[in-house]
Amino acid sequence: MMKNEYTPGEQRNFQTHFAALAGRVDTALEQLLPGEDTPPPVLHTAMRYSTLAGGKRLRPVLALAACEAVGGEVEQILPAACALELIHTYSLIHDDLPAMDNDDLRRGLPTCHIKFGEAMAILAGDALLTMAFELLSAPGLPVPPQRQLAVLHEVAVAAGSQGLVGGQVLDIQATGRETTPEELVDIHRRKTGMLIRAAVRLGAMLGGASSSQLAALTTYAEHFGLTFQIIDDILDITGDEQKLGKPVGSDQKNNKVTYVSLYGLEVARQKAQESRQQARAALADLGERAWFLRALVDFVISRDH
Amino acid sequence: MMKNEYTPGEQRNFQTHFAALAGRVDTALEQLLPGEDTPPPVLHTAMRYSTLAGGKRLRPVLALAACEAVGGEVEQILPAACALELIHTYSLIHDDLPAMDNDDLRRGLPTCHIKFGEAMAILAGDALLTMAFELLSAPGLPVPPQRQLAVLHEVAVAAGSQGLVGGQVLDIQATGRETTPEELVDIHRRKTGMLIRAAVRLGAMLGGASSSQLAALTTYAEHFGLTFQIIDDILDITGDEQKLGKPVGSDQKNNKVTYVSLYGLEVARQKAQESRQQARAALADLGERAWFLRALVDFVISRDH
Repeated sequence: MMKNEYTPGEQRNFQTHFAALAGRVDTALEQLLPGEDTPPPVLHTAMRYSTLAGGKRLRPVLALAACEAVGGEVEQILPAACALELIHTYSLIHDDLPAMDNDDLRRGLPTCHIKFGEAMAILAGDALLTMAFELLSAPGLPVPPQRQLAVLHEVAVAAGSQGLVGGQVLDIQATGRETTPEELVDIHRRKTGMLIRAAVRLGAMLGGASSSQLAALTTYAEHFGLTFQIIDDILDITGDEQKLGKPVGSDQKNNKVTYVSLYGLEVARQKAQESRQQARAALADLGERAWFLRALVDFVISRDH
Repeated sequence: MMKNEYTPGEQRNFQTHFAALAGRVDTALEQLLPGEDTPPPVLHTAMRYSTLAGGKRLRPVLALAACEAVGGEVEQILPAACALELIHTYSLIHDDLPAMDNDDLRRGLPTCHIKFGEAMAILAGDALLTMAFELLSAPGLPVPPQRQLAVLHEVAVAAGSQGLVGGQVLDIQATGRETTPEELVDIHRRKTGMLIRAAVRLGAMLGGASSSQLAALTTYAEHFGLTFQIIDDILDITGDEQKLGKPVGSDQKNNKVTYVSLYGLEVARQKAQESRQQARAALADLGERAWFLRALVDFVISRDH
């Protein structure tokens, strides 16, 4: 168990606040996704199945937390924050397909293609990705349309051929062969880091961040993403299958390069700690309003126990 | 051969102008798509392969033509028009996959998954869809950002779970069973009609259309889309395999309901003619600047000969 730097009181507040933010995301997703009766019902049922199957809602929660950290009002940016979860869910559905990682289980449930067939899983992913941009371009945000366009553009770049999709390609190519540390960092930056960065920046920009606040939160996001990825790699080795909702050792099984395979468990843990400290240091000028972002990176570390 | 309503002189101008607009789209796509050396190279090679393999560029050409019809300048809206072609290409790549239509040939060439493998085809489609929204949110358009957001939102809706993706689901479900005429119209409206409508409206809105011009062009687009779909169904029966770049009779082979299977060849041709007349009628108030849009719906009809 890693040492937490927040006090027991802060920890209680952290869990309450995390649950509150994630709960608002869940409620918003439930309301924003077309109902299961909307034609074509099977498509919308599949979209809802994969999106509402649980998950930590980390990306939208990061966005809402960044919004709060700059004094913004989270209610108005909820649909935009939900768009990040739709992109995350689409990427998981497509990654799980037989042609990719060929996974049968996700969050303890049958994956989308196991439940609805391969064609419907491909199409549900396509529709979730498209819906993300529908939400990001919807009216009602408390910022000028120029800023909304800039946010949408950043999310598209982070999700695109040089971001999320490109990372998945590099990950497939790296499987089962020698990978350098530089390649590993590059794969994770694209596969996880860029969307996490976009999530924090989305919340900050839509929450009215100044340019110095935005710069600080961007640094935070980059270190947060790295911490998250290292811990994810560690949990694939040391984690509890039931808590993870997926088989442990799947990276090993698939011969995937990870921070653990590259550096060993101890050095990987050190790197996660260093990265966490840098994430916290970036928040220095944001003061008390950034307490939850500080606690959030500690929470990521605390998953490894 | 159907009677063309334009004079030989107009026809010559039509072909020249079509080639000019499609050529600008080709050049812009070539420049906008990341080069084959951009990491990950195989992904960008696959994206370029499928997008630059030819095709009529009908959706971006419609957008540029609508822009011209309201007196707009096409140069500035080229990237946005290209986004429509990226969405069209992504939908073809995913439709061709083994889990869907399982087609080996497209435009006379091996389909993306035959050439690059199934995983890369799924990812190339994902990346093209994402890049479309990157282009639609890019700076440089000659309209207020509020209007740009509205255009992007319309495209997302047209491409989404109740548009293009939904139409593909309904098409899969309709294969091999009784389909009503209402269902057929609904499938085509989603699969083809909504994106064609969004293309025309994109060009009009970014070209500075007044609300009455936009309404007229929307009516044109709806009838254009119907004409296009009926002729497409007819060509699947009567067409020239080499010109189509795909096997004729593939709808029959796949037991797909079409305007021809539902109404027979003669009634389907009548319906195409009626729809073409309504498309032309909608352009009455737009005057001479809409000459190319008039000729374009005639061109669609003339493909059936």
